[in-house]
Amino acid sequence: MNLTEELLIDICRGAAFLGTGGGGDPYIGRQMVRQAMEYGHQVEIIDPNEVPDDALVIPTAMMGAPTVLIEKLPRGDEAICSLKRLEKHLGKKAFATMPIEIGGINSTMPLVVGAYLDLPVVDADGMGRAFPELYQETFAVYGISCTPMAISNEYGDTTLIETHDNFMAEWLARGVTIRMGGAAYIAEYSMTGAEVKRTSIHNTLTLAISIGRCLREAREQHRDPFGALFTLMPQTPYKFITEIYQGKIVDVQRTTSAGFSVGSAQIQGMERFAGLMEITFQNEHLVARVDGDVKAIVPDLICIMDSETAEPITTEALRYGQRVKVLSVSCPPIMRTPEALKSFGPQIFGIEEPFTPIEDLTKQP
Amino acid sequence: MNLTEELLIDICRGAAFLGTGGGGDPYIGRQMVRQAMEYGHQVEIIDPNEVPDDALVIPTAMMGAPTVLIEKLPRGDEAICSLKRLEKHLGKKAFATMPIEIGGINSTMPLVVGAYLDLPVVDADGMGRAFPELYQETFAVYGISCTPMAISNEYGDTTLIETHDNFMAEWLARGVTIRMGGAAYIAEYSMTGAEVKRTSIHNTLTLAISIGRCLREAREQHRDPFGALFTLMPQTPYKFITEIYQGKIVDVQRTTSAGFSVGSAQIQGMERFAGLMEITFQNEHLVARVDGDVKAIVPDLICIMDSETAEPITTEALRYGQRVKVLSVSCPPIMRTPEALKSFGPQIFGIEEPFTPIEDLTKQP
Repeated sequence: MNLTEELLIDICRGAAFLGTGGGGDPYIGRQMVRQAMEYGHQVEIIDPNEVPDDALVIPTAMMGAPTVLIEKLPRGDEAICSLKRLEKHLGKKAFATMPIEIGGINSTMPLVVGAYLDLPVVDADGMGRAFPELYQETFAVYGISCTPMAISNEYGDTTLIETHDNFMAEWLARGVTIRMGGAAYIAEYSMTGAEVKRTSIHNTLTLAISIGRCLREAREQHRDPFGALFTLMPQTPYKFITEIYQGKIVDVQRTTSAGFSVGSAQIQGMERFAGLMEITFQNEHLVARVDGDVKAIVPDLICIMDSETAEPITTEALRYGQRVKVLSVSCPPIMRTPEALKSFGPQIFGIEEPFTPIEDLTKQP
Repeated sequence: MNLTEELLIDICRGAAFLGTGGGGDPYIGRQMVRQAMEYGHQVEIIDPNEVPDDALVIPTAMMGAPTVLIEKLPRGDEAICSLKRLEKHLGKKAFATMPIEIGGINSTMPLVVGAYLDLPVVDADGMGRAFPELYQETFAVYGISCTPMAISNEYGDTTLIETHDNFMAEWLARGVTIRMGGAAYIAEYSMTGAEVKRTSIHNTLTLAISIGRCLREAREQHRDPFGALFTLMPQTPYKFITEIYQGKIVDVQRTTSAGFSVGSAQIQGMERFAGLMEITFQNEHLVARVDGDVKAIVPDLICIMDSETAEPITTEALRYGQRVKVLSVSCPPIMRTPEALKSFGPQIFGIEEPFTPIEDLTKQP
């Protein structure tokens, strides 16, 4: 599939939804891909099954705090620099690149890399949403090493990291990212086509397109975009979707700390919702509580959206006074296994409550 | 010259003196070399002029806060790991290793590497003393790049850094070092034999031996070790030596911050010295003031020594109640050029007062 301007807009909106508040401002990523296309470059998106088993795939992404990204814009070639650095280290050319997560700029960053380097982009990722830390990848859960990884900044400075486990990779890479100003660009989890097929969440770029298109068409046809979304999602691996809250944002606490954007938003309930919902985030939304009761919890998706237009709102864009609806979506089964929950579950974020599927939380009185 | 146990003790004491409070605990480094020698390894120290012009030399060192080093002991092969990582990157074997600074553990770390890898150690360094930051090298001042550099920790994790300048190399490497626990082991400033001859301070390992031997022999022969030192130093490139203070340490402020050991020591004057001397340090002693008047200032050497035994005291070993003499020594001319002062001078440390040679400060009434 060759990317068009319309598909790009759909990807960005869909990815912002799947990013559950994180993944970085999708507008910036969209502008970067659009510029590449204006320069005459093409972006080809291929199915994971089209990748030869022995081909080298190098995923690319932005790393850091989304709050930093909107003030420290990328020069544009940082992720390309990282991919080339990793190719040089491996002594082999990449057959394709791909996203590590579906969310905001990190769905589009590989599109930029693919456009300029004339590499196809694999329609798959390692999170099925966005998560803040590098080891939170299905790639890692199912045996792929994050390292060797390369990190680059806007000066062309690069760091190549090799570690004994993926936690140390995250720890060192985050340190470098902080010193690069809080946002940097990485190439990591290099793997074979066979490994991509086995460890990735397939067809999440086309899923983002479907979600984005569904919202766009509903708006164009003056239908309820939320209704359209509620019709679409059960046809995807993210089967269950529900509205867990509606109201007005009355407070946002947000700091950029240790290379992450961390904080919480408080939403005063409206309509059938009474009380105050608090949503805690570390780049992505982690848990939504009303009066201390968990209403949705990671790794299930928690999406804050404009209550009229259904535009997904990323954490760095949350503002006092916004009227929002909060949706929760069940994550795919591959992300709910015991191994997966060790990397993605509430405990890794220091949250006391155990993971409870959104389907079960919704059933509770 | 082949290293003996006696020469090793002399090197460590002499390097602790030249380290001006920094460079890390010399005892730890001494034990590491001794162990290598007990395992049957030999250490060969060669003159810079013995290195072929086209040979590859890779300096090795500890990086981080000396306060951390004494609690987080090295496993022993970290610097070896860094040298090998850099060899792999460069695609070439090292002919020799060498110190980047003469001070504490960093005079002995290359001896450990040389012993286990059977590489000679070049009798030269890039500071002629110790300094806290990586760009503070005569190598850098005279055109050698700090990067590519490798950093390793006790798990065998490595980071390979390539930057557009030496300031960024220090900045990123310090970030990695902090994340590696505050002390890590590096290989950097790889260069040719010709470059070693042109940019290094020659014969500083043998200088450390001379200083250590002078102090040891004076003690053994019940002569005044300070007197012996005052006789020796004018015969070296560090021509001028003077006692700037004598007294009792009455306060030590010391924190480990941003990967450095920073703080100050206050010394209550005794004998002919009235008032309170304050010595400020960042790993190494930077400036000594009495009532706000500068008595000695970086890059000249400020050495705090036990007032009876003339044992050099490193900053992490400063304690309330110690009776000390403070000596200042002029640094070699290569470190006082305008280019050198840009890297080594007071301004880079945020000190307001300009550099004034210790010879001139001593003349003042």
